[in-house]
Amino acid sequence: MIKVGIIGATGYAGVELVRLLLGHPQAQIAAVGSVSFEGKPISEVYPNLAGLFDEVLVKDDEVLARSDVVFASLPHGLSEEYAARCAETGKIFIDLGADFRLWAEEDYQEWYGLDYHRPELHRAAVYALPELYRERIRGERIIGNPGCYPTSIGLGLYPALKNGLIDPNSIIIDSKSGVTGAGRGLSQTTHYPDCNEAFSPYKVASHRHTPEIEQTLSDIAGGPVKVTFVPHLLPVNRGIVSTIYASLAQPVDLGEIHALYERAYAGERFVRVCPEGAVANLKNVRMSNYCDISLHLDERTGRLIVISAIDNMVKGAAGQAIQNMNLVCGLPEETGLTMAPPAF
Amino acid sequence: MIKVGIIGATGYAGVELVRLLLGHPQAQIAAVGSVSFEGKPISEVYPNLAGLFDEVLVKDDEVLARSDVVFASLPHGLSEEYAARCAETGKIFIDLGADFRLWAEEDYQEWYGLDYHRPELHRAAVYALPELYRERIRGERIIGNPGCYPTSIGLGLYPALKNGLIDPNSIIIDSKSGVTGAGRGLSQTTHYPDCNEAFSPYKVASHRHTPEIEQTLSDIAGGPVKVTFVPHLLPVNRGIVSTIYASLAQPVDLGEIHALYERAYAGERFVRVCPEGAVANLKNVRMSNYCDISLHLDERTGRLIVISAIDNMVKGAAGQAIQNMNLVCGLPEETGLTMAPPAF
Amino acid sequence: MIKVGIIGATGYAGVELVRLLLGHPQAQIAAVGSVSFEGKPISEVYPNLAGLFDEVLVKDDEVLARSDVVFASLPHGLSEEYAARCAETGKIFIDLGADFRLWAEEDYQEWYGLDYHRPELHRAAVYALPELYRERIRGERIIGNPGCYPTSIGLGLYPALKNGLIDPNSIIIDSKSGVTGAGRGLSQTTHYPDCNEAFSPYKVASHRHTPEIEQTLSDIAGGPVKVTFVPHLLPVNRGIVSTIYASLAQPVDLGEIHALYERAYAGERFVRVCPEGAVANLKNVRMSNYCDISLHLDERTGRLIVISAIDNMVKGAAGQAIQNMNLVCGLPEETGLTMAPPAF
Amino acid sequence: MIKVGIIGATGYAGVELVRLLLGHPQAQIAAVGSVSFEGKPISEVYPNLAGLFDEVLVKDDEVLARSDVVFASLPHGLSEEYAARCAETGKIFIDLGADFRLWAEEDYQEWYGLDYHRPELHRAAVYALPELYRERIRGERIIGNPGCYPTSIGLGLYPALKNGLIDPNSIIIDSKSGVTGAGRGLSQTTHYPDCNEAFSPYKVASHRHTPEIEQTLSDIAGGPVKVTFVPHLLPVNRGIVSTIYASLAQPVDLGEIHALYERAYAGERFVRVCPEGAVANLKNVRMSNYCDISLHLDERTGRLIVISAIDNMVKGAAGQAIQNMNLVCGLPEETGLTMAPPAF
Repeated sequence: MIKVGIIGATGYAGVELVRLLLGHPQAQIAAVGSVSFEGKPISEVYPNLAGLFDEVLVKDDEVLARSDVVFASLPHGLSEEYAARCAETGKIFIDLGADFRLWAEEDYQEWYGLDYHRPELHRAAVYALPELYRERIRGERIIGNPGCYPTSIGLGLYPALKNGLIDPNSIIIDSKSGVTGAGRGLSQTTHYPDCNEAFSPYKVASHRHTPEIEQTLSDIAGGPVKVTFVPHLLPVNRGIVSTIYASLAQPVDLGEIHALYERAYAGERFVRVCPEGAVANLKNVRMSNYCDISLHLDERTGRLIVISAIDNMVKGAAGQAIQNMNLVCGLPEETGLTMAPPAF
Repeated sequence: MIKVGIIGATGYAGVELVRLLLGHPQAQIAAVGSVSFEGKPISEVYPNLAGLFDEVLVKDDEVLARSDVVFASLPHGLSEEYAARCAETGKIFIDLGADFRLWAEEDYQEWYGLDYHRPELHRAAVYALPELYRERIRGERIIGNPGCYPTSIGLGLYPALKNGLIDPNSIIIDSKSGVTGAGRGLSQTTHYPDCNEAFSPYKVASHRHTPEIEQTLSDIAGGPVKVTFVPHLLPVNRGIVSTIYASLAQPVDLGEIHALYERAYAGERFVRVCPEGAVANLKNVRMSNYCDISLHLDERTGRLIVISAIDNMVKGAAGQAIQNMNLVCGLPEETGLTMAPPAF
Repeated sequence: MIKVGIIGATGYAGVELVRLLLGHPQAQIAAVGSVSFEGKPISEVYPNLAGLFDEVLVKDDEVLARSDVVFASLPHGLSEEYAARCAETGKIFIDLGADFRLWAEEDYQEWYGLDYHRPELHRAAVYALPELYRERIRGERIIGNPGCYPTSIGLGLYPALKNGLIDPNSIIIDSKSGVTGAGRGLSQTTHYPDCNEAFSPYKVASHRHTPEIEQTLSDIAGGPVKVTFVPHLLPVNRGIVSTIYASLAQPVDLGEIHALYERAYAGERFVRVCPEGAVANLKNVRMSNYCDISLHLDERTGRLIVISAIDNMVKGAAGQAIQNMNLVCGLPEETGLTMAPPAF
Repeated sequence: MIKVGIIGATGYAGVELVRLLLGHPQAQIAAVGSVSFEGKPISEVYPNLAGLFDEVLVKDDEVLARSDVVFASLPHGLSEEYAARCAETGKIFIDLGADFRLWAEEDYQEWYGLDYHRPELHRAAVYALPELYRERIRGERIIGNPGCYPTSIGLGLYPALKNGLIDPNSIIIDSKSGVTGAGRGLSQTTHYPDCNEAFSPYKVASHRHTPEIEQTLSDIAGGPVKVTFVPHLLPVNRGIVSTIYASLAQPVDLGEIHALYERAYAGERFVRVCPEGAVANLKNVRMSNYCDISLHLDERTGRLIVISAIDNMVKGAAGQAIQNMNLVCGLPEETGLTMAPPAF
């Protein structure tokens, strides 16, 4: 059994890790950490866990001491220290936050306003989107788990961009995320009567996931890609739908595009290319580690439209983190992640 | 008092007309028609109206006989006949359906699969988006009330396109509509457990509002405009948000764009340009005839992003129809439409 | 025109007063007060009001200075002072909070933990549920506007209790309220992902509206009535449904009960007794001042079941406050309150 | 591996069975049946299952032929035939419908309007609420799986009633169910815009689960119990909360009641008695087989208030059916049912 610990266990990503890890046949939750609720059973904060997992929340030091794999879900700027301590003690560190996602320190400085204090850690870290970077991830010990939007977008565009199907300068991404994406912290925007029966974009063309999205797309395309990215707050608990628009580089029919995506994702356990005519819907991926992708052609304007749907809390956070743990620990990648998404 | 009649009064647009007209100081609902519920009080079908409006639903003939202005909210293909009868008897006909929106019969044939049987009626009809075509509308008697998506999009792009701010070939529109947009008819997609906590696009790049959108944008631009248009079903009752992307024709700063929109809509009672930094949200326009527009610049990619929010049932249907009635009847345009949108 | 001022205008009840008063033909909002947002236009806090009502929020002193009728929507314990100042200057004071609802100071002390500092103000005040106490209210100047739950319950039980139909010791009330009832303040319970797809009671048999409910029911019954009252938080924005159970005092058939309720509420503009077989639903009263009541008999157990539905923000707060203002100012009671509830 | 078949697999309970059985380590879905969709892969009807379970839907005969355990989720009146065929061929029949729940044919005749054609099957059947009737269930082969409301209510009242804590004639049950309880079939009531932001009771004091509730409560109490039962439609997908009121038979304090419930449910894997002060909430049991129960005392009126929360689709249908299969097949009762409920 792998002994895992969770830092920031009472945040939404943290408690989703708990839910999934409780069903993981080869992992055991050795410790859960929390600053705000230290000393309380986690099931007092999250009564859904009562009887199943009543572990008392401990200090982060304790989490590190007890675990072989440490998951951290923290505000940006806090993860370097934990990564360093894991590196020193030979533990695997899987960061669900933003600190180990960007390769270029300038990007981090520009979008997050902070420096890399320990650049060697960042050099040692891997950006861990398994379907794209599986081989890079395997041997590593500092894992930068991708953001939710970048996961849905990277998977959505990978085959098209890799194969030169689309003009890399034409990409526009209109994403919609469920409210858990905003976290457990209170805000007027996520106050029920202000959020229910409401809808709007936020951080228009200025969201911090933009450089991460561009990093992945540039890497796939083999050259710099800039995108327009507009996220929206969707009045549902879970899920992201990204509607992605790009001009075709040359005429191609939908059947060929489908064949290409199916080939690219053949053997991938967690990516489902929807049949022609079907449309990806977040309801089909909820509570699961799936990414559903549907492909559409606007023949009138020569644009490809890719719809990509994930559960922001699973494939967009905790599920993918566990997929990465499996990969790093040499387990079958789907271990603990095979539950069927509910129909409703 | 203007005597108004409503054909298709038990559909969603029909009953919204009833709600608004009950508060109109110069109009009186003379008759409400329904095929399915003829002979029943409308308040039996819609108990929200009990005590306020218990009128018995009658046959369409009766509606025509009793009214000076006839509103029709019908599936496409049915309105010509009513328009003809109104024309013969000197009544004003305001069509909330699709039959009098498209100028080119070919477009109607292509997207709706039907012919114009009485082309002279279509020539006599006016496409009635008041903020754009006020002067054309005033004297007319066959009124093609715009679709909900085209209203949000036409208003959102008008100043930019009119002033050559954007490249007309670069327009991509990602719209999200509340479920009343799908009407009162039952379907699996709008069955509560299938629709709640779900989200997806539908009719991707193939929605029938596309030619209507392009007709308006082409008219504004003074030349053919083709767009990519993808609507999505949003799990809220009311409202449309259109997120519209277009490449700037030349560099311009956000302040100038704002100034231009404010100038274009100065004096317009129902269009609100949000202050810089604010984002249009459908919650602010619900139950009202407002269209809120916010403007954003993606300087990194040189794209303008326009967010346009309306209530699909008011400015996108019944409210605009009444605005048109006011215009045609020589009343102040806002008569009966001055209610404040609720905060929640 | 009556000059009205609102203290606490940026709370939910306050902004709902604004919405309704903007449509009131004989009242003019002279001033809106806020401690948290003083100096800002109210439309910056509530963009739904932009263009319609951009009044700058002022200090409470200013509100009092400019108004003839002062509405206050404040946490308990703060209203006495304003009532006193209104009394001194001859203004009408309408309190939407709890401070002027309870006749017995002991009840206030027990349930709110505070004393009456100025008992003469409380003696001068009237508990203003118009359908029950219309005649008492007319001449008064300190108006205790009823709570939302007590309104739905008092109206639901009045005819049955008044006529000795039910055993006053058998009353059990199971109420469900939309989330605006919890106000604009943030809390974990009303954080969207914690509140959406959730449901539970709160303050079980210990809610502060209990003594107010019992005060009204005792007054109707002519003797002390104690009830079991359990409120629940309902994942909708607006509306209260109270399901009220009571044992019949003697056998009676449903037709008689209906006749009795119809007689009791004949001529009441805002109470609708649903036809036999229909069930009151909060969707039919949203955004309106209606109270819908449906009546059901459990013949197997000899119990009457009354379903009472109101909009907690209108009949349960701002709408009833305006109804009281109309009553006190000698206007027709429905002035400004005649809008039809929407069908969706 | 147990070979299981599902008749009515495309209904909501059927597809929930599929979801849960896919995670069951000792069961294998041998066949899924459907009349409406025969010949299609089930993942075409429910794309959430794509890739995971693409089994083609077959005729019922085929389901029976391939299975050792047959689950049926059918409208009432159809199960006898399948039960008979299972009996003849030595298969276990687990009925999620209503046909094998009522012991007295008169009750079935009165509430369902049908006769028992094969009374011997009903005599051989067991009403299978495991926490109450575990020993009766073990050896049986025709299993009447309880209704959703009766499950929440039977579990909620069992310890109180068994121990004579409450007056059996005073029981009033106010239940609220998510919309999946109404099934996959379309209706105006469950059309999204009619159901969202709405709330009301239905089948007031006349719901068909009433005799089943009374059967269980009478059996516990050892004498006839009649209840008032009012279900409500709650705008969420899943979950039931029953708020149950009963007069105490004699004075008792909350601590004693708690102790009694904890004793009664000690060792029960799927019943959680909430700690004093906590309130059961459906959000904590979603997607799980738990029943959460919280206990409250209204000392002012001498009433016990029990709040019972389950997932109507799991403990109220498919999960309990699997629990019964485990029991009947000699597996540990929680096999395949140990997943943690999500926090959101």
